[in-house]
Amino acid sequence: MAKIKKINHVAVVVDDMEKSLAFWQDALGLEMAELRDVPAESAQIAFLPVSGSEVELVRPTTTDSGLAKYLAKKGAGMHHICLEVDNIDEMMVQLKEKNIRLINDAPKTAADGKKYAFIHPESTGGVLVELYQF
Amino acid sequence: MAKIKKINHVAVVVDDMEKSLAFWQDALGLEMAELRDVPAESAQIAFLPVSGSEVELVRPTTTDSGLAKYLAKKGAGMHHICLEVDNIDEMMVQLKEKNIRLINDAPKTAADGKKYAFIHPESTGGVLVELYQF
Repeated sequence: MAKIKKINHVAVVVDDMEKSLAFWQDALGLEMAELRDVPAESAQIAFLPVSGSEVELVRPTTTDSGLAKYLAKKGAGMHHICLEVDNIDEMMVQLKEKNIRLINDAPKTAADGKKYAFIHPESTGGVLVELYQF
Repeated sequence: MAKIKKINHVAVVVDDMEKSLAFWQDALGLEMAELRDVPAESAQIAFLPVSGSEVELVRPTTTDSGLAKYLAKKGAGMHHICLEVDNIDEMMVQLKEKNIRLINDAPKTAADGKKYAFIHPESTGGVLVELYQF
């Protein structure tokens, strides 16, 4: 049985990166490892590591992405939780067997080789859950 | 300067504990450390530790608590993120100096001696943030 290893990150969708960093970085004191433009996701992402996990601040850079529409509809706030798993393929078989609704039928592979997939909030109790395997 | 040590937990508000556990525990395979009734918070809480952090599933047990009203208004889903801090008193001074709006003006002390306080989502970019110090 595949195993969840840890909370990899919590993603927060933001509309104003400067204002968000004024809280998470300047006031709370988290250190920002990187502020990256990710054109493939139509987003700018601030990575703030904290003890093996991360807070990620994600700002849509276009108005027509899924994230931009989420922001327009629901407002800024927590977007998803990402859990690291030791074997994502096995986990997805396991989830399908339990009739869990997946957004991605098979894991996607990012440019850095990381495999990931999203689980539909309908099956999690309203939480968008991402799975990662490095 | 006070320092954030880690993500202590991510809290999910749920309306159906059995259904939520069917996902988080049975399908995803997280182990439940405890299912606790917390009358002081008018809630039942499932604690699912994962590598030094926790996923907490929180089900309101009355209809008039703040959490019950949140659930009725916003539906089930992520409720707050809790960050562990080495010195909560110092952190709260630090946050006030940066004009961060706090829900609790001073830390509260739980029955187990833990000190905690909430930061208002207005100052965080829409995220309810809890601070813990053990």
